[in-house]
Amino acid sequence: MLDSLKTRQRQRKEDPALNLKEIANLIGGTVRGDESVEIQDVRSIEDAGEGHITFLSKPKYLEALSRSRASAAIVQKEVDIGKAQVIVANPVLGFARLLAHFHPASRPKPGVDPRAALGENVKLGKNVVVSAFVSLGSGVTIGDETVLYPGAVVGDGCGVGNHCVLHPNVVLYPGTVVGNHVVLHAGAVIGADGFGYTPDEQGRHFKIIQIGRVEIGDHVEVGANTCIDRANLGVTSIGEGTKIDNLAQIGHNCSVGPHSIIVSQAGIAGSCALGHHVVVGGQVGIADHVTVGDNASLMSQTGIFRDVESGAIYGGSPGVPHREYGKQTALIQRLPELADKIKALEKRLNAIEKK
Amino acid sequence: MLDSLKTRQRQRKEDPALNLKEIANLIGGTVRGDESVEIQDVRSIEDAGEGHITFLSKPKYLEALSRSRASAAIVQKEVDIGKAQVIVANPVLGFARLLAHFHPASRPKPGVDPRAALGENVKLGKNVVVSAFVSLGSGVTIGDETVLYPGAVVGDGCGVGNHCVLHPNVVLYPGTVVGNHVVLHAGAVIGADGFGYTPDEQGRHFKIIQIGRVEIGDHVEVGANTCIDRANLGVTSIGEGTKIDNLAQIGHNCSVGPHSIIVSQAGIAGSCALGHHVVVGGQVGIADHVTVGDNASLMSQTGIFRDVESGAIYGGSPGVPHREYGKQTALIQRLPELADKIKALEKRLNAIEKK
Amino acid sequence: MLDSLKTRQRQRKEDPALNLKEIANLIGGTVRGDESVEIQDVRSIEDAGEGHITFLSKPKYLEALSRSRASAAIVQKEVDIGKAQVIVANPVLGFARLLAHFHPASRPKPGVDPRAALGENVKLGKNVVVSAFVSLGSGVTIGDETVLYPGAVVGDGCGVGNHCVLHPNVVLYPGTVVGNHVVLHAGAVIGADGFGYTPDEQGRHFKIIQIGRVEIGDHVEVGANTCIDRANLGVTSIGEGTKIDNLAQIGHNCSVGPHSIIVSQAGIAGSCALGHHVVVGGQVGIADHVTVGDNASLMSQTGIFRDVESGAIYGGSPGVPHREYGKQTALIQRLPELADKIKALEKRLNAIEKK
Repeated sequence: MLDSLKTRQRQRKEDPALNLKEIANLIGGTVRGDESVEIQDVRSIEDAGEGHITFLSKPKYLEALSRSRASAAIVQKEVDIGKAQVIVANPVLGFARLLAHFHPASRPKPGVDPRAALGENVKLGKNVVVSAFVSLGSGVTIGDETVLYPGAVVGDGCGVGNHCVLHPNVVLYPGTVVGNHVVLHAGAVIGADGFGYTPDEQGRHFKIIQIGRVEIGDHVEVGANTCIDRANLGVTSIGEGTKIDNLAQIGHNCSVGPHSIIVSQAGIAGSCALGHHVVVGGQVGIADHVTVGDNASLMSQTGIFRDVESGAIYGGSPGVPHREYGKQTALIQRLPELADKIKALEKRLNAIEKK
Repeated sequence: MLDSLKTRQRQRKEDPALNLKEIANLIGGTVRGDESVEIQDVRSIEDAGEGHITFLSKPKYLEALSRSRASAAIVQKEVDIGKAQVIVANPVLGFARLLAHFHPASRPKPGVDPRAALGENVKLGKNVVVSAFVSLGSGVTIGDETVLYPGAVVGDGCGVGNHCVLHPNVVLYPGTVVGNHVVLHAGAVIGADGFGYTPDEQGRHFKIIQIGRVEIGDHVEVGANTCIDRANLGVTSIGEGTKIDNLAQIGHNCSVGPHSIIVSQAGIAGSCALGHHVVVGGQVGIADHVTVGDNASLMSQTGIFRDVESGAIYGGSPGVPHREYGKQTALIQRLPELADKIKALEKRLNAIEKK
Repeated sequence: MLDSLKTRQRQRKEDPALNLKEIANLIGGTVRGDESVEIQDVRSIEDAGEGHITFLSKPKYLEALSRSRASAAIVQKEVDIGKAQVIVANPVLGFARLLAHFHPASRPKPGVDPRAALGENVKLGKNVVVSAFVSLGSGVTIGDETVLYPGAVVGDGCGVGNHCVLHPNVVLYPGTVVGNHVVLHAGAVIGADGFGYTPDEQGRHFKIIQIGRVEIGDHVEVGANTCIDRANLGVTSIGEGTKIDNLAQIGHNCSVGPHSIIVSQAGIAGSCALGHHVVVGGQVGIADHVTVGDNASLMSQTGIFRDVESGAIYGGSPGVPHREYGKQTALIQRLPELADKIKALEKRLNAIEKK
């Protein structure tokens, strides 16, 4: 299986063409129509031309697909479009796999740039790339095939696994542990101090030092300029396969389960526990010490101040189950009408009482 | 015309003094009073003294202006303050132009610092500044007079235009295209992967690789630590003259029109289309695939989940036209009163029904 | 007094053990039970074992404490747990002080790495650490014992005080002034241009250049990737002892008083004045030119568009005093019920009017 996470710099393969039979094998589908159609690349419905395969993500694009100049299409069910088709359960997944085939990751030449700064007892795996101006603290371990782009800073005692990519200017504070196949985008800061103070006798904020660490599981991706804070004592952990967007904040001592999604600018305060396959929408805020159950989903801009049960969908601030939220927002928009009705009732009642 | 965008490091000109006639010529106004008054610098109403010119941005500051020790003032209409005046249509614009005159940009000496890392086939224009610890990938083009501050990372194949400034630690991912007179503030990340995944057969998030790019038009300014993601296929584009504040997020495949304003911490999800002269307030969130028409304005913290028509002003989350939003918030604050009224009506009705 | 702000890299002291009498002296408390009990480290109630001291932050953890294997506990009042105790007014403060004792800050060896870039007329204090790839502009002053981690960029004319830590890739724009005992976390950007434009005759945004600066007081801590903008004219100031979390935005010309707290992702627009001991919750937005009084507290996600009086607690967007906010949110959740009541009243009134 192609690994799309290796690096985000890509180039066209020299001879990437596949016929539909090969494509069906690659993405796990079956062909309807001429298996021998040669495909050079994958494109959107609008941009596809001769030699391209496209895909039908939603039924509403069927008409556009039938007008497309693509030579073939990836679809969920056979459709009447006069083109050869590859049938798969999830056409977007088929598209994603083909895209990774036609645009394999390029990576810099292995080796340590002489302009990098390495501390004592650094252990580098096979084929590691250490670019110019990368700084590796003492006792750092970097796994096989991992790429460190310029300006990445890896603090003392950090361990980074195999097949990872640290994009430019990523910072790992000392003691951070990163699994395999992890991608950290530019400017991400992993392991900065959690935000903890307590008032002293003079009302000044006395710092509670943060001596824990961050552990990031395999196949995690962290967006640009996102921050994940180290634990006070213990661990802040991000589960395997979880994907985090740009500019998100994850507080100290949080535990985020595997295969979750955290969208841009979401903020999770300290000591929260999120389950697996949780979806945290953009700009969501979660207060500290909150538990969010497996498969729960938090709509954009929601504010969560209490535990959320597994499988629930929440909206609003303070957040409520999304059906209630839907009713609330509809009624808020009807408030002028409700106020008018109250006024009318008062008038009618006045008239009755006068009699 | 003075170009205030060249760089943000400034110093006093050696002999910058202008008389009011020269100032009126420079900023396109007319003098009322003694044209020969010599002005050394521009200041706020409170801080101005002998030899300074100040400006009246709003009529409410007129009294303060009349007490100011400034030698002259930039005003929209002649006012009775016992000082020489320069009349212009927009006094703030006149102030901004004078400020740029009295504090011209300083810039580092042209040249490539020997501690910079340049890839193969890098093309540098005239008078380019490449500071220490700057990393330029292979095939990078940098236009005339452009300044790259320390730690800036420009990926393979990027093109940066003339008269640009990349502040420290800016990151351009490979293939990013930047126009002329563009300012990118420290820590901005342009061209990181868009956030796209699709579930595979085991419920893991399979990455949809992002092979598109970002294109930034002329005279754009991007704030510190702001992120603009590359397109999946195609282009994420920022139109000419658009200004973006700090810590904003612009998702993959967005198209932001020219001369728009995006305030700090706003987040725009993928595939949105914004028109020209749009204003996106601070902490606004816009859901994916939304169109925002020309000259539309979104108030701070608004959440936009549906298209916004040209010229509209929206507020609230979910966002509604601002007049509705004003009514809604007023009625929400009146909810205790409305609840009391309902209770009172019930009592009165009970009494009537008893009879 | 131990200074917990020196640096965030810590290690175990070689022989840190203290008996309870020594601990009581160190943290300002009194012992109940055997003063000679030897303590090796401090731990949470769950993780503590033989030789550890733990602490009771809230009465609800008393039962857990009585089951803990800790050798002693820091408490506010003597409790019946069959363990020696140290009585202090604020057990969390006692814990924080002990934690700093047992885990003193480690710091890199003093000296200037030959791979750093220093401009002209740089003045370095005693025992300064200048790491690889640090860039110091001309005329920069760095105080005694200050540590600059890799990739930090300090612009021309900046002054940084004694005992400060600039974590990796921090950027100070030219002219920034930083006090003593200040910690700036990775990726923080101090002194980027404020966001100021005015429309020109063609409807383009003409930049109002920002020639002011940022001043940061003693004992301030600034979170990762947080941005504090320079003033247009004058100063953006952060008062002594104020603590700012990650990804916050502080606009130009703001004045934040001493000993305030600004939580992650909060955004403060230009020209705001915050008093002392203000608490700004996570994701709060404050509009420009707003005054927030001393000791005021803004709940998470609040939107503040008008002045807030000293000591007030605000919630909601737009923000209102928190009692009103509590009533509003309760009534919003009761809106379906209120709408039903209005409907019922109408029916009953119809019935009466029919008679």
